[in-house]
Amino acid sequence: MEKRSPNLEIDNLDMQILSYLLEDATIAYTEIAKRLIVSGGTIHVRMKKMQDMGIIKGSNLIVDAQKIGYDVCAFLGIFLEKGSAYKDAVEQLKKVKEIVELHYCTGAYSMFAKIICRDTAHLRHVLNESIQAVEGVQRTETFISLEESIKRQISLDNLD
Amino acid sequence: MEKRSPNLEIDNLDMQILSYLLEDATIAYTEIAKRLIVSGGTIHVRMKKMQDMGIIKGSNLIVDAQKIGYDVCAFLGIFLEKGSAYKDAVEQLKKVKEIVELHYCTGAYSMFAKIICRDTAHLRHVLNESIQAVEGVQRTETFISLEESIKRQISLDNLD
Amino acid sequence: MEKRSPNLEIDNLDMQILSYLLEDATIAYTEIAKRLIVSGGTIHVRMKKMQDMGIIKGSNLIVDAQKIGYDVCAFLGIFLEKGSAYKDAVEQLKKVKEIVELHYCTGAYSMFAKIICRDTAHLRHVLNESIQAVEGVQRTETFISLEESIKRQISLDNLD
Amino acid sequence: MEKRSPNLEIDNLDMQILSYLLEDATIAYTEIAKRLIVSGGTIHVRMKKMQDMGIIKGSNLIVDAQKIGYDVCAFLGIFLEKGSAYKDAVEQLKKVKEIVELHYCTGAYSMFAKIICRDTAHLRHVLNESIQAVEGVQRTETFISLEESIKRQISLDNLD
Amino acid sequence: MEKRSPNLEIDNLDMQILSYLLEDATIAYTEIAKRLIVSGGTIHVRMKKMQDMGIIKGSNLIVDAQKIGYDVCAFLGIFLEKGSAYKDAVEQLKKVKEIVELHYCTGAYSMFAKIICRDTAHLRHVLNESIQAVEGVQRTETFISLEESIKRQISLDNLD
Amino acid sequence: MEKRSPNLEIDNLDMQILSYLLEDATIAYTEIAKRLIVSGGTIHVRMKKMQDMGIIKGSNLIVDAQKIGYDVCAFLGIFLEKGSAYKDAVEQLKKVKEIVELHYCTGAYSMFAKIICRDTAHLRHVLNESIQAVEGVQRTETFISLEESIKRQISLDNLD
Amino acid sequence: MEKRSPNLEIDNLDMQILSYLLEDATIAYTEIAKRLIVSGGTIHVRMKKMQDMGIIKGSNLIVDAQKIGYDVCAFLGIFLEKGSAYKDAVEQLKKVKEIVELHYCTGAYSMFAKIICRDTAHLRHVLNESIQAVEGVQRTETFISLEESIKRQISLDNLD
Amino acid sequence: MEKRSPNLEIDNLDMQILSYLLEDATIAYTEIAKRLIVSGGTIHVRMKKMQDMGIIKGSNLIVDAQKIGYDVCAFLGIFLEKGSAYKDAVEQLKKVKEIVELHYCTGAYSMFAKIICRDTAHLRHVLNESIQAVEGVQRTETFISLEESIKRQISLDNLD
Repeated sequence: MEKRSPNLEIDNLDMQILSYLLEDATIAYTEIAKRLIVSGGTIHVRMKKMQDMGIIKGSNLIVDAQKIGYDVCAFLGIFLEKGSAYKDAVEQLKKVKEIVELHYCTGAYSMFAKIICRDTAHLRHVLNESIQAVEGVQRTETFISLEESIKRQISLDNLD
Repeated sequence: MEKRSPNLEIDNLDMQILSYLLEDATIAYTEIAKRLIVSGGTIHVRMKKMQDMGIIKGSNLIVDAQKIGYDVCAFLGIFLEKGSAYKDAVEQLKKVKEIVELHYCTGAYSMFAKIICRDTAHLRHVLNESIQAVEGVQRTETFISLEESIKRQISLDNLD
Repeated sequence: MEKRSPNLEIDNLDMQILSYLLEDATIAYTEIAKRLIVSGGTIHVRMKKMQDMGIIKGSNLIVDAQKIGYDVCAFLGIFLEKGSAYKDAVEQLKKVKEIVELHYCTGAYSMFAKIICRDTAHLRHVLNESIQAVEGVQRTETFISLEESIKRQISLDNLD
Repeated sequence: MEKRSPNLEIDNLDMQILSYLLEDATIAYTEIAKRLIVSGGTIHVRMKKMQDMGIIKGSNLIVDAQKIGYDVCAFLGIFLEKGSAYKDAVEQLKKVKEIVELHYCTGAYSMFAKIICRDTAHLRHVLNESIQAVEGVQRTETFISLEESIKRQISLDNLD
Repeated sequence: MEKRSPNLEIDNLDMQILSYLLEDATIAYTEIAKRLIVSGGTIHVRMKKMQDMGIIKGSNLIVDAQKIGYDVCAFLGIFLEKGSAYKDAVEQLKKVKEIVELHYCTGAYSMFAKIICRDTAHLRHVLNESIQAVEGVQRTETFISLEESIKRQISLDNLD
Repeated sequence: MEKRSPNLEIDNLDMQILSYLLEDATIAYTEIAKRLIVSGGTIHVRMKKMQDMGIIKGSNLIVDAQKIGYDVCAFLGIFLEKGSAYKDAVEQLKKVKEIVELHYCTGAYSMFAKIICRDTAHLRHVLNESIQAVEGVQRTETFISLEESIKRQISLDNLD
Repeated sequence: MEKRSPNLEIDNLDMQILSYLLEDATIAYTEIAKRLIVSGGTIHVRMKKMQDMGIIKGSNLIVDAQKIGYDVCAFLGIFLEKGSAYKDAVEQLKKVKEIVELHYCTGAYSMFAKIICRDTAHLRHVLNESIQAVEGVQRTETFISLEESIKRQISLDNLD
Repeated sequence: MEKRSPNLEIDNLDMQILSYLLEDATIAYTEIAKRLIVSGGTIHVRMKKMQDMGIIKGSNLIVDAQKIGYDVCAFLGIFLEKGSAYKDAVEQLKKVKEIVELHYCTGAYSMFAKIICRDTAHLRHVLNESIQAVEGVQRTETFISLEESIKRQISLDNLD
């Protein structure tokens, strides 16, 4: 029985550092150090360790997509002709750059995607020309977001 | 007829800068400047302008949630008892910290949420105690992500 | 196939006149008269008769809604809390001027509506503030039209 | 990035003229002129401009379909075998003259159509012989309108 | 454990008699007797027994409903507000004379009904005024029969 | 409301006769004659006329299916692979003698059937071996009747 | 008409014995004998008879699957490409050892399965590589159990 | 962050013992000992440990429910009026002894149950009188098992 190695190397201090950074990615290490009453060097060591472990994978610019002309955010339930087409379909869908998230999900849909388009004409084009043209994709069910009420990072809990 | 002010202030150079940063948020301004054959100061000016305009809203740490013990990512279709309960429900749902995204959507569901939990026991607790306890929420339909095949930023196109 | 004798007062000439006008509402009566080899007066008499009978109820300007800023055309399946709320709900929905068509339908939905909005923000407002606020409306299911491929008048057939 | 030319040329007077005509397509230009306190010539100039711009595309005769023997109005959700069959299917469906509206929609259905038939026998014939015979159409879901409670033009708002 | 009394009293001859009558209710007893090589009296005795046992409950006139103006045959899936409202709802629905069959079913619907109406206006009236007005009925889903392809009695098998 | 003149040859007396017979198919003609204050011969003449017109098509024995070992009554929604397979599928389904009713319906299903089986093993056999083996049938959705609460003839109304 | 042999040989004492054993499989025969005021030998004779008749088919170890690393219990609705693929699909699915129950069901799904997996990665693998790879399986709909609230044997009733 | 204690105490020998017993609960300890080349005492010690740890929770008699008159096995999707009614509903449903399994599930249903009944009349009674009478239960969707094709224990893998 292959065991996923438990996160033995992560201690509570690591989690507290992450917690601050998830809340505000621009917080200075010295500020974190001060709040946790450790040295700034400790923060650097821990950050380095978490990067090496693949826990911290980088950072993202947060852009207001609508302000640069990407008005339409939609979720797609994707039905495959056969469930076994999944792997090949994923490879093809990776080439559709409007897809920003793709999940293999339980429930009615084979896959679940989030896409960002400029407008509904763009959305129609992506659905017709890019996604539904993928070998194995049977049909899609589109949910357009009319308002994004919440968008935030996970909030680590029960740390002290 | 209130007009959404068109993005007249954003020019192609701004978009090219964004494009590099969306692809790699850690790229140095000097590198961007070199590639676009402009001065580093220009990049700074443009970044400042885009921050002032609210186009760039900050940055996010990219964390591998599973490696810190948050194993379950799920999407929730949320049915409200009455559509008119939407506003109040959103306010309550903002207090549920496991919800990282919430959308008001077209289609079958009143709202669509993305949540991150530690395990299925945690998920059950969040559904039962937090989300379904919200006034106005009738029931939820949960789709658990079994694999996140794509997760990336939007890719700006047709820039030259 | 046993024929249900419809509308004894309507004869084939009436139907042929209608047929020309449904195809092109701007066709001159003299042109219709020429094609049907009758006098212009006959066309006038028949038009008058069909107006009196309530067959011809007026005319509509055909406007390109998108060109005047009404970008979003959507269909709504409306679920009522109880089917018996239908009559009152219709009265309330008549006050929602974005609704251009409303049908009482067989199938899954209690009612089926077509609405025209300026943009998705307007659509959200209409759904939240106007339609879902109607007493008796439980929830709605929205289908946004991404392209109107066909839009035309009925075409009368089997005329000779 | 192809830009949809913004409606810069449309001013409030144009919209007010349209507003009167959408409410009553038979209103005389002189009446509109009187109400808006402009000359009749102005109305003509503006109408000509809006026709040239493709805003006003013509006019429709409003006919009571039931009074001329077209008793059944139905909506069809059309499922395609593959989403990529959309374009060809539209071309075929254009030949089915009972279809008066066809939309490419978000949501469960690939396409959404409105059809007008004489009776349920005619409807069955259209479904079986015309629509379901189209290459690429897998199945249809029919909603028969039992009552058209609202049927009207869009009502322009916020004009003064 | 209450036992449903097994059909010990029914023998193969009874089943053969029933089989002839289910195929053609107007067949003469003498004809049945001849075919089964028994006396006519035997047929009478057996028929009497099956009537006494409640196996034969009477006979129905077969009328072409459409020819006497009952054009619309529809099936209704009925959703109850609460499953426990079933008994009372049945009592109320018995008073709706357009309902010719009502079943308590497995599957998505609480109840399943078959109704016969004169036309779609009548159908709308029955749905709105009679069925959806019943206490406990939440909503209905209507399937209109466009063609009755098969309508016949059960055919008893494996008799010899 | 303009009246569609139905079946000119049927008068109110015919309908009243039918009404008595639909209520009780065993009522004697002399009894009907007495109640309607006409001669017995009139009843015979009218019955003959209605048989000639195809209004009365025969009579059915009413049998308690459960008492002769047919315990399971089920409704089937039948999905076809393609709607155009309808005609051929009907011909094949006519050979499945457990099907007592088959309708071409609006709504989610291509066809809707009622079947009578001895038990669930028989039902499974009919679904697997007979119905799903029909060319063009993709899948079926089965609703088992747990109780037949209403089963009766249409009741003619508004007669006097 | 093949008859399933009725359980004539099972008497109330047999049922009482079963009832005790279904409640607690470890109860000693002597204890059962004492409670039912019969000899221990009688219990043995009856148990032997019920084993010979195939009523008692063996016993199962009750294991807490989660405690040995099988964390995920899920139900699968399985849609077949064609209902007629059922038999072959079952043979293939028998080889998927994660499936602990498989039913041919009425309702929306062709088949209904219960599967036990180690974690969601294992579940994804079983869905993708084992179940959806089966010839004839079109797609699956997965319901993950978040909590097993009840798990018990049937409880025989009305015994005395 | 409460940690579920990892199964450190379970070694491969324990799993191998379980594996034999899950395959055949009646296998003698001596036989297991022989196959695993350990002493019989070791098996006893390990069994005792696994019982103490709650891994082995007892044993179940395997009974052929149909042979003792329990003919109908059904799955129920249960919709609650509000998700928050879950806990109380479970307590009530525990009293319905026909329910042998109850799960809180992701997907469309609030809860998922397996029930065993004597016949469809019993099933109807349980649905109407017991389950739908539970406070908070809105409606149920029933899937009757027409055939149980697979019923077995989990099969432990990758042991050596």
